[in-house]
Amino acid sequence: MIIKESPSIMQLFFSSKGSVVPKIISKIITLTSLSVMVILLDTYVIKLPHISIQVMGVFGVALSLFLGFRNNAAYDRWWEARKLWGVLIADVRNLGRHLNIFVGKGEARESLLSYTIAYAHLHRGALRNINVRKEILPWVGEQAADTLLSKKNPADASLNVIAEKIKDLEQKGKISGYGLLTISQTLASFAEAQAGCERIKSTPLPFVYSLLVGRTTYLYLFLLPFALIEAASWFAPVFTAVVAYVFFGLQAVTDELERPFMNVQNGLPLDAMCRNIEISVCEALDRQPPDELKPKDHLLT
Amino acid sequence: MIIKESPSIMQLFFSSKGSVVPKIISKIITLTSLSVMVILLDTYVIKLPHISIQVMGVFGVALSLFLGFRNNAAYDRWWEARKLWGVLIADVRNLGRHLNIFVGKGEARESLLSYTIAYAHLHRGALRNINVRKEILPWVGEQAADTLLSKKNPADASLNVIAEKIKDLEQKGKISGYGLLTISQTLASFAEAQAGCERIKSTPLPFVYSLLVGRTTYLYLFLLPFALIEAASWFAPVFTAVVAYVFFGLQAVTDELERPFMNVQNGLPLDAMCRNIEISVCEALDRQPPDELKPKDHLLT
Amino acid sequence: MIIKESPSIMQLFFSSKGSVVPKIISKIITLTSLSVMVILLDTYVIKLPHISIQVMGVFGVALSLFLGFRNNAAYDRWWEARKLWGVLIADVRNLGRHLNIFVGKGEARESLLSYTIAYAHLHRGALRNINVRKEILPWVGEQAADTLLSKKNPADASLNVIAEKIKDLEQKGKISGYGLLTISQTLASFAEAQAGCERIKSTPLPFVYSLLVGRTTYLYLFLLPFALIEAASWFAPVFTAVVAYVFFGLQAVTDELERPFMNVQNGLPLDAMCRNIEISVCEALDRQPPDELKPKDHLLT
Amino acid sequence: MIIKESPSIMQLFFSSKGSVVPKIISKIITLTSLSVMVILLDTYVIKLPHISIQVMGVFGVALSLFLGFRNNAAYDRWWEARKLWGVLIADVRNLGRHLNIFVGKGEARESLLSYTIAYAHLHRGALRNINVRKEILPWVGEQAADTLLSKKNPADASLNVIAEKIKDLEQKGKISGYGLLTISQTLASFAEAQAGCERIKSTPLPFVYSLLVGRTTYLYLFLLPFALIEAASWFAPVFTAVVAYVFFGLQAVTDELERPFMNVQNGLPLDAMCRNIEISVCEALDRQPPDELKPKDHLLT
Amino acid sequence: MIIKESPSIMQLFFSSKGSVVPKIISKIITLTSLSVMVILLDTYVIKLPHISIQVMGVFGVALSLFLGFRNNAAYDRWWEARKLWGVLIADVRNLGRHLNIFVGKGEARESLLSYTIAYAHLHRGALRNINVRKEILPWVGEQAADTLLSKKNPADASLNVIAEKIKDLEQKGKISGYGLLTISQTLASFAEAQAGCERIKSTPLPFVYSLLVGRTTYLYLFLLPFALIEAASWFAPVFTAVVAYVFFGLQAVTDELERPFMNVQNGLPLDAMCRNIEISVCEALDRQPPDELKPKDHLLT
Repeated sequence: MIIKESPSIMQLFFSSKGSVVPKIISKIITLTSLSVMVILLDTYVIKLPHISIQVMGVFGVALSLFLGFRNNAAYDRWWEARKLWGVLIADVRNLGRHLNIFVGKGEARESLLSYTIAYAHLHRGALRNINVRKEILPWVGEQAADTLLSKKNPADASLNVIAEKIKDLEQKGKISGYGLLTISQTLASFAEAQAGCERIKSTPLPFVYSLLVGRTTYLYLFLLPFALIEAASWFAPVFTAVVAYVFFGLQAVTDELERPFMNVQNGLPLDAMCRNIEISVCEALDRQPPDELKPKDHLLT
Repeated sequence: MIIKESPSIMQLFFSSKGSVVPKIISKIITLTSLSVMVILLDTYVIKLPHISIQVMGVFGVALSLFLGFRNNAAYDRWWEARKLWGVLIADVRNLGRHLNIFVGKGEARESLLSYTIAYAHLHRGALRNINVRKEILPWVGEQAADTLLSKKNPADASLNVIAEKIKDLEQKGKISGYGLLTISQTLASFAEAQAGCERIKSTPLPFVYSLLVGRTTYLYLFLLPFALIEAASWFAPVFTAVVAYVFFGLQAVTDELERPFMNVQNGLPLDAMCRNIEISVCEALDRQPPDELKPKDHLLT
Repeated sequence: MIIKESPSIMQLFFSSKGSVVPKIISKIITLTSLSVMVILLDTYVIKLPHISIQVMGVFGVALSLFLGFRNNAAYDRWWEARKLWGVLIADVRNLGRHLNIFVGKGEARESLLSYTIAYAHLHRGALRNINVRKEILPWVGEQAADTLLSKKNPADASLNVIAEKIKDLEQKGKISGYGLLTISQTLASFAEAQAGCERIKSTPLPFVYSLLVGRTTYLYLFLLPFALIEAASWFAPVFTAVVAYVFFGLQAVTDELERPFMNVQNGLPLDAMCRNIEISVCEALDRQPPDELKPKDHLLT
Repeated sequence: MIIKESPSIMQLFFSSKGSVVPKIISKIITLTSLSVMVILLDTYVIKLPHISIQVMGVFGVALSLFLGFRNNAAYDRWWEARKLWGVLIADVRNLGRHLNIFVGKGEARESLLSYTIAYAHLHRGALRNINVRKEILPWVGEQAADTLLSKKNPADASLNVIAEKIKDLEQKGKISGYGLLTISQTLASFAEAQAGCERIKSTPLPFVYSLLVGRTTYLYLFLLPFALIEAASWFAPVFTAVVAYVFFGLQAVTDELERPFMNVQNGLPLDAMCRNIEISVCEALDRQPPDELKPKDHLLT
Repeated sequence: MIIKESPSIMQLFFSSKGSVVPKIISKIITLTSLSVMVILLDTYVIKLPHISIQVMGVFGVALSLFLGFRNNAAYDRWWEARKLWGVLIADVRNLGRHLNIFVGKGEARESLLSYTIAYAHLHRGALRNINVRKEILPWVGEQAADTLLSKKNPADASLNVIAEKIKDLEQKGKISGYGLLTISQTLASFAEAQAGCERIKSTPLPFVYSLLVGRTTYLYLFLLPFALIEAASWFAPVFTAVVAYVFFGLQAVTDELERPFMNVQNGLPLDAMCRNIEISVCEALDRQPPDELKPKDHLLT
């Protein structure tokens, strides 16, 4: 995630950090060149067929509809993903308090909260397709780490371990029925948030939208220069460039927001949120918490 | 569900997998031919009445409104259906943990979780109008399978069996009141998600929208060539084809998303999700889980 | 509710079942005739003042805004109403299971579930302003039926009876505190869904929108022919008819969706859902369930 | 709230009840006169600068965006406010049943439910800035009424009294822990709905929108006549009047919907809903319920 | 937050309080001057290239899409933030009642509610990056204040203290399991609302939108004068000014709404809400409540 203040005018036009321009600059140049060629051909060589700009208007409304829909849907996915991680953070803090209330401070609570941190990292690892063995080692030890990572769904497995430990506490008479009830609900909340994230990861926007939007955008931008000959005369290449920037830019942004867990410029800062969870747990255990992750070159991972 | 990376430019224009073009190509060709005929007639034979392109603009805004509404509504149905199945997945995992906490590992838990898998398959069967006897046999045995399948709502019947078994555990004193409370809530969550899916299946978008949108689209596309004679001259057939692609394509997509449980290109991968549930249950029971379903030719069923 | 497959092209243009055309055909004919008259007058008798089609475009965007808003709001009401009834269906099934778990099978459970069916019918009766005495008689008997129907809110009264019976069970020691807790929550869920439906029934969309939209639509369609003389020449009447169809059609649809409980073409199938509830209860009681309601001439009531 | 059937054509144009016309008629007349003056000046006196209608189109899209946003936001506030009162109604009914289940019929329950009615009236009083002493007197007596009304938040104070009475019941051993749990949750639901209503009342839409929308609308309507000279010729005043009606009308409606608790034409019928609550409580107490409030001259307060 | 009545016409045009004009006036003047220059150059010096106004129309629709999306997203963040604080207010009141029901009035309850107020202030302090030591001193004393403020997440730490005190009560036998259950849920509700606010604060809208919208707006407004030469002749500068006002104004508003916790004109009145919480606690403790915060010069902080 890019962390930056509102850009000044200068930054607005010359900032490339956080911009999608680098990704789409070649497409913009290609289309602008086409526009220059069309206008040169039409003026000096041969009259090309013109298209009324109003046709592009009709077309443009339909295209805007598509792009707007896709943008909204992608943003909703991104924001829902962030909400689910916010729920996870609250759940971890709640679990710490519930354990204090129903079990009391002590070794059992420390062990359970350690598994919660492992859970967060394992969940992050599954969402980003990365190995988090290193991050969970200090919390659960080597043996448990390997057992968890050998499962198909290590995050779910770590919740199973937590349930197992709760069961143990119950059998030792260290937790009341009320405690079991409360903590069962907290674990259920973890599982729901996790299933929500897995849903967002495993179910992209219907592929057909990519085709519909992609094809229509290209056709629109290819036809645009023929409509701009008359309507914008020598401004035509400028317009083509701007419209290409807007349409391709929006597409590039939605491609990133659609997959909110990827480690890209507009992805969610899962690393920072896992660190946040570690801080909360350390403070709940009265330990020295680690520092928050800071953005590097404006990028928080 | 189609599982594919963001398409490259080449793929964008020549990919047919995941595209709706095959379904609507005949309509596009018909309308494009009409456009060619209109322009030939108008140029070489007889002056046809022209329509100002702005009229089409006014018309087009209204049509976009319809199409946009229908698209949003259909996508919401599809995404809600996926959310409900995500809740089912979380519920199954939660039930496994709650049973561990309140009942403990053992035969009773295994039997109950087996019925949960049967439940998922039976629910899938009802949503897709298919017979899932084969899939539930290994989990509940022949006799129970036949009893369940003889009911009008086999999925609901399998939840009834689970409740029955919970009652048995209670009468044998193997589960506390807190356990009954927690598990009752989990069963209620199953039932709500199921009723949500049944709602989406049994209540399509109001039929009148299909008529309104369908009729208006056809009329629009039939009148368009008369407006393009002047406005796009020899580009007219290209525009007709593109606009037909956009409007018919959007309609074809929404037809599929509106019925998210059908086994079509843009349907939800219920098979893969049921497998996912089987994996979670197996891992909860410390058994060897089956493999995840992989997309075949980019299609996950 | 109309239950029909996606229409074929033929059906699209000649289907009247499920169409709003019959309701608005006279308005469409009137306006089309006006358009014919305007164009005849202008061509053969006297030059009428023309309106630029772009003015209609500006106007049309504002009108689309209104119509789109009203359509979305009406559809949301309709869909929320369906969701609330889906919750009711799940609640009935849950109550059956909770009673099994906490009370056990037997007479008490049968009687309670019978009242649940009465509740569904009474709620339906209140929403549709019809008398459901006949439907509840077989479930609660004549005396109880008359007592319930003498109340201002018979559905709420039937929930009061259920609470009364639960209290009786508690006093006889047949239900634990956990059971009371669980079943209280289920009853609360009934009441919330019911209050939601009553809200939708008693609070229509603000009346002022009907006036704003209705007046603007008429004025728009009255002025349209003067704008089409130039812009569409002899196609003008066709356009007037189409636009009238779109705008009046949308209005007619939203009028129905806004009141989702009415027994009209696009109303919700409350009868079928009450039958659905009866089926669920019968299967929970191991009785022979009645058949599902089938659409008659594509109409499910 | 205006309660009226869908208007017939005649009513549509000549109904003033429920219309916003009376409030904005002076503005409409002023702008229409301006339009007449502009066209007379331009035709007979001096050529005024013309504005292309397309410029107004561009402007109009931006304005529609604003108006549409404000309308949606205001309607959402209105509808959310109604939902929250629906929750209150359900909560009152639930409390009656929970008290029956966990405390039993009797004086305690009657007293508690009386305070619930006082709560509803006090909440209504706070939302409408009116004194409801008269309405709560018959339910809680003079002394309690004065104590409650002396608080800064009388509705919250009445919930505190209810909690106090529940505590008393507990100390007398008349309510179980399960009852405390259930009723605590119901009280929490009251408090959440109340805080929601207070939020809507105390947090209007950001003031800056009123300025942006108001200013832009005036400028648009002031410039419109200059654009209509050419585009609509002698229809110009008609168009100006219609567009002014639409834009000012929408603004007037949203001003009312934005503050849903005010006692205005489009406000929520809080009086009727409080009566509704009284009816539910009376039926729960087997008393003769009062009559429902009927709309007076189509207006339900 | 600006608290003002609906503006009269005079206020509408000359009110600067609550307006964004002061912030964007320099940009508006720059662009209007450009427009004047362009029209003077074109008329008296040299024919500049003209742009068809329809091109701007096409461009404008795309820009409206962006601006509309950003405005909606920012408003949703602002309103969600207000909702979360509404939940906090309800939670504080609920906690007071739950403590009364399950613990009874007395010192323990007073101390716990004092920490709730500290919690609210600490949460506000974190959201606004300000030090609230002064505000929490009277409620928790110097030592506790310093301990809390030494934590990385002081608000969370104060909830930990509350949990600690609840645990103490349990060990002294002063609270039942039902009470622990209920109060655990209330604390969990606090934590969820807090995590929601932290989410809104720490996750701004994706930065790329600022670039896309900012750049496109500038380009649009720079090109607009060339399109207005023909379309609006001498009205061109007026239009440029108005459109610049609309587009820059909307951007300035969304910049504020996007960060709802900042102490700016359109920020949320966190101070007033914390005072509101103090009032509720004082009334729950039968103490003399402080006065509500009043807007100063129409501004409520």
